[in-house]
Amino acid sequence: MRALVFDGELKISDVNKPTIARGQALLKIRKAGICNTDMELVRGYKGFRGILGHEFVADVVEGDSQWQGKRVVGEINIACDSCDFCERGIPSQCRNRTAIGIYGHDGAFADYLELKAGNLHVVPDTISDDEAVFVEPLAACLNILESVHISPRDTVVVIGAGKMGLLAAQVLKLTGANLAVVVRHEKQAKLLAQWGIRAVQKADLKPQQAQIVVDCTGNATGFQDALDLVQPRGTIVLKSTYADLPQADLTRVVVDEIRVIGSRCGSFAAALRLLEAKLIDVIPLIEARYPMDSALEAFQFAQQTGVLKVLLEF
Amino acid sequence: MRALVFDGELKISDVNKPTIARGQALLKIRKAGICNTDMELVRGYKGFRGILGHEFVADVVEGDSQWQGKRVVGEINIACDSCDFCERGIPSQCRNRTAIGIYGHDGAFADYLELKAGNLHVVPDTISDDEAVFVEPLAACLNILESVHISPRDTVVVIGAGKMGLLAAQVLKLTGANLAVVVRHEKQAKLLAQWGIRAVQKADLKPQQAQIVVDCTGNATGFQDALDLVQPRGTIVLKSTYADLPQADLTRVVVDEIRVIGSRCGSFAAALRLLEAKLIDVIPLIEARYPMDSALEAFQFAQQTGVLKVLLEF
Repeated sequence: MRALVFDGELKISDVNKPTIARGQALLKIRKAGICNTDMELVRGYKGFRGILGHEFVADVVEGDSQWQGKRVVGEINIACDSCDFCERGIPSQCRNRTAIGIYGHDGAFADYLELKAGNLHVVPDTISDDEAVFVEPLAACLNILESVHISPRDTVVVIGAGKMGLLAAQVLKLTGANLAVVVRHEKQAKLLAQWGIRAVQKADLKPQQAQIVVDCTGNATGFQDALDLVQPRGTIVLKSTYADLPQADLTRVVVDEIRVIGSRCGSFAAALRLLEAKLIDVIPLIEARYPMDSALEAFQFAQQTGVLKVLLEF
Repeated sequence: MRALVFDGELKISDVNKPTIARGQALLKIRKAGICNTDMELVRGYKGFRGILGHEFVADVVEGDSQWQGKRVVGEINIACDSCDFCERGIPSQCRNRTAIGIYGHDGAFADYLELKAGNLHVVPDTISDDEAVFVEPLAACLNILESVHISPRDTVVVIGAGKMGLLAAQVLKLTGANLAVVVRHEKQAKLLAQWGIRAVQKADLKPQQAQIVVDCTGNATGFQDALDLVQPRGTIVLKSTYADLPQADLTRVVVDEIRVIGSRCGSFAAALRLLEAKLIDVIPLIEARYPMDSALEAFQFAQQTGVLKVLLEF
């Protein structure tokens, strides 16, 4: 089968189709999305080697009869089901986990993917393939609401209006909070206006007034901006991983008694509910589509500044 | 009057006795404690110029009759009483605050100190002067319990067994949690043993097992150690300010979904209650006493590694 493999360099390879064991399903990928994490993995993050990709929609072609023929999305963390975190019902923090296309498990930029059946979610018919590809990143944004209580009275600022920030903004809009998104590009401002979300420059915002700042920038400047905008005793939610090790003003965290909360994967079931209810508008986030055979070009395009979601189609 | 002044260099100066306005009290200092923050101010933190010192016990010698002759301690943040944080009852985060001996207000390393009467707390007779000097840092440790809920089932690790860490450990012991303190010096281990608190080396602890890690080290290594010890979705409480801007692994905060909580000043009333109940043993933390005239030698001694609390006596 075709696969986008990273072994120090990125290439399309012909690799063996995976085989499945009991409790696993074989998925035929329909579409997959390129995420910033994929680009960081290629820059060396976590030393990953193998097939990339963790945002996808697929058909079950082999496995237990209850799954056969279903159109599905799949949770990316493959848990051991026996450690303390699995026992507490937090498989995303399983101490022995692997993660599709990120750590210890091949990914979805391939014709076929083998996955534990317990990770699958059937996609309702009213959700298109294009929408379903966004279930994973949307779930990750919903984790913000798991991690911190947001009141309708709160002022919330999102920094970093990339793929993640624009999804996060739509999720945060649903809380009724007073929301603003710091943008750099006109395209993002237009999208936000379309959704009735206020796009601002950092200079438009009074310093230290937001109860909650969500940092979707993935760089140290973003963390510093978050510190400038959050009020004392407020909360900064970190939504993206950082390519380098930033200098962080921890003294300011102490003096202003800030809460910094790391947030990663979230509920696929909730993401599917919101997509089914048409409360999240993901289609305008699709910047380009490439056939799998042009995956290298897709990757190159996705790395350009300001480019939103790039899809691979099979 | 005599005062320990920092104006780029540290010196004992003869300065004017402060005068008081309505709503203020004039305090005659009995004893004062040297804190790590004092040493950082001398290294340039916050660009402070003036009389240092914010841990003290004193007698009210001038002011409103209800305070006259009372032995008191004083909260260090002088609030404006009109900003949003003052209105919310959080004067320690007042947006227009000054702080005794730290920012915009002279401190307590002097014969006399002028302070807003609303900041005073009468010291009960059963609390000695030596104990009363610890009310401010003990209150700061109690802020840990304000900032994060600690359950008796939790595993809690304190890193950094200096003055602050040893006080924090005693406060945390009262929660009934499974407590360990990472120590470097034999003296600290002995003190902890005396209080029935487990002293360990970092290597004795399993990685990523503590629900809560309290970092009292004030350096970037401490934060990294905290990340090593805290479990996924656990909490790191930052208790000390950092002289330099540390490199912080924020990606790990995201991936492990850690909560990092800055914690600063706490309740004087609660600190006085615990001292009155003899639940906190501060006397062994006193490493040395110097007369005010030898304040420079006291400062020099306090800066040595492993030295605990140094008191100035008037």
